Amino acid sequence: MSNHTARLFNFSAGPAVLPLPVLEQAQRDLLALPGVGMSVLEISHRSKPFEEICFAAEEDFARLAGLPAGYKVLFLQGGATLQFSMVPMNLLPAGGQADYVDTGVWSAKAIQEARKVGQVNVIASSKGTNHDRVPAAAGIRPTAAPAYVHMTSNNTIFGTQFHFVPEVAPEIPLVNDASSDIFCRPVDFSKFALVYAGGQKNLSIAGITVVVVREDLLERAPQEIPVYLRYATHAKERSLYNTPPVFGIYILHLVLRHLLAEGGLAAAGARNERKAGKLYAAIDGSGGFYRGHAQPDSRSWMNVTFRLPSEELEKRFVSEATAQGLDGLKGHRSVGGIRASIYNAFPEAGVDALVGFMSDFQRRAG
Amino acid sequence: MSNHTARLFNFSAGPAVLPLPVLEQAQRDLLALPGVGMSVLEISHRSKPFEEICFAAEEDFARLAGLPAGYKVLFLQGGATLQFSMVPMNLLPAGGQADYVDTGVWSAKAIQEARKVGQVNVIASSKGTNHDRVPAAAGIRPTAAPAYVHMTSNNTIFGTQFHFVPEVAPEIPLVNDASSDIFCRPVDFSKFALVYAGGQKNLSIAGITVVVVREDLLERAPQEIPVYLRYATHAKERSLYNTPPVFGIYILHLVLRHLLAEGGLAAAGARNERKAGKLYAAIDGSGGFYRGHAQPDSRSWMNVTFRLPSEELEKRFVSEATAQGLDGLKGHRSVGGIRASIYNAFPEAGVDALVGFMSDFQRRAG
Repeated sequence: MSNHTARLFNFSAGPAVLPLPVLEQAQRDLLALPGVGMSVLEISHRSKPFEEICFAAEEDFARLAGLPAGYKVLFLQGGATLQFSMVPMNLLPAGGQADYVDTGVWSAKAIQEARKVGQVNVIASSKGTNHDRVPAAAGIRPTAAPAYVHMTSNNTIFGTQFHFVPEVAPEIPLVNDASSDIFCRPVDFSKFALVYAGGQKNLSIAGITVVVVREDLLERAPQEIPVYLRYATHAKERSLYNTPPVFGIYILHLVLRHLLAEGGLAAAGARNERKAGKLYAAIDGSGGFYRGHAQPDSRSWMNVTFRLPSEELEKRFVSEATAQGLDGLKGHRSVGGIRASIYNAFPEAGVDALVGFMSDFQRRAG
Repeated sequence: MSNHTARLFNFSAGPAVLPLPVLEQAQRDLLALPGVGMSVLEISHRSKPFEEICFAAEEDFARLAGLPAGYKVLFLQGGATLQFSMVPMNLLPAGGQADYVDTGVWSAKAIQEARKVGQVNVIASSKGTNHDRVPAAAGIRPTAAPAYVHMTSNNTIFGTQFHFVPEVAPEIPLVNDASSDIFCRPVDFSKFALVYAGGQKNLSIAGITVVVVREDLLERAPQEIPVYLRYATHAKERSLYNTPPVFGIYILHLVLRHLLAEGGLAAAGARNERKAGKLYAAIDGSGGFYRGHAQPDSRSWMNVTFRLPSEELEKRFVSEATAQGLDGLKGHRSVGGIRASIYNAFPEAGVDALVGFMSDFQRRAG
């Protein structure tokens, strides 16, 4: 990597890799948007050029998602962390209860924040097996009349993912933290009442959070919660109540157009399944040298977690991979070992490079 | 403006103009940070290269501000709007009272959010004169023992600015919304307990909020408030509790280095005073054709507001100015007329161009 502008393969869990054509367009237009004469970093959020970008992002998001009528798409700030609080503040009435499915660190944080607002029932948990799976569909049984059911569709740290949508009665709002797998494949948004996602993995950059919310939920929040934290505030003003994360919305719009041009979510799903399949095949074909953390039916398409025979070998693996331009492979301390995050924009060539490296490393070390 | 990459003079009230060398460096390095091999839009906030940027921004901020020991600099999200809530949630205990100085639309919003948390005393207001001035120093008298006193040092909509720091007893924390004038000149931060500023005017881009807080205030917040909204959460983790607005912090760091290289806040203050002085001289020298909204001793260095003899002339003024590449001059509906926002990075050549246009317009229309 002698050329300092050469790009590595970035396996980071997030913020994560963006599509190269998006980066190139952002770079080309960074001093002045074509026909506008100002940088997108400088234009007023009340200007016509920015309104066009913001509303186009909203519409392209709905189109790509196949969003039914009756939903709002909001561009907020504060990440999933702020959503952990906004969801119960908006949807959990005084004296009410909410059901949560616990599939790891991020679910646990969501539960902790919800408990500040009201009663939380943990209706299913994978804690007993160090979150190596998501609960089976039959094991997710909501209580009698919860304000909502909350799930986390992909778990970056443990490398697990829901490959089904839990069944809940139609009158119970299903809420999903889709921060790390939104738009990884087609999804039926009509099954969800609210979906939120930090922008820094599959959508855009750090600093923008997208919330998709069914309109009938908007007015549930008490009037006395902070104005910024009410979904209704932002829905009413189409994300322009206050200054939004302008550049994050701009990058989101470029990413959405890129996804649409590349064949939409069906094509994205096919690419992601193929990419993840190659890595899991490398793990399964290693004769036990590489051991996946996630149980096969819960394996994530976005974060592939595995161990080696010893921590010493894991260290060597990360260090040699880094030297070969395969960056960000060190696993989270909760699981240890290796984590390869391969979000939508992660190039298949990088997966192939890692598969090659894994085989080579095993031959030398195994 | 036939070349579509030509840059206009951007008089927008915010998001606002950035220093051209900052934009040029961001553009040059957008595909891959030198020596890093990944775009700053993609790097992990837990990576060493980003930690270096983030901590350097913190340190350069403190150096530029001349910040005494005992303060923390935090990089948050949600803009001043979220601070309107975070300040009382952190600093106003149950049953306590806070004093607010009302100098316009943004103060009023801060007051509205604080009233959701506790009792608010409006101890001075310029509402009676449509906020054409800030209250005189002698008119700002805190109540007996408020939890804090809150002020708004610059008022973008009305074009007024405090040119003094109100006197409050040393045991009363003084809180300032400096969103639109932070770093416009040297300021004695030791007089304030907490200063906050949305990033999109003098500091960086939209989507980052900087908070400077005295350490002794950090633990005042009740434990049960949302984790994202506690200043202590972010102070403890040096703004890395959750994924921060990475690109906003990067641009902030470039802006801070640019300000330091250009002579720091003393030099910025001299430039700003000269720029504003030219516009106010043009108003005062127009024989009444241009009428400033702000009283002379409250005139803002950042936002210059004025009226013309008729709304029809004002419309023509804006439309002809826009055609000449002077963009964003339409005033806010609360004041009407013209608003020229000339933040730190606004070039003096743009001020000269506007002064020339004003003189030319008056000759043709007056």
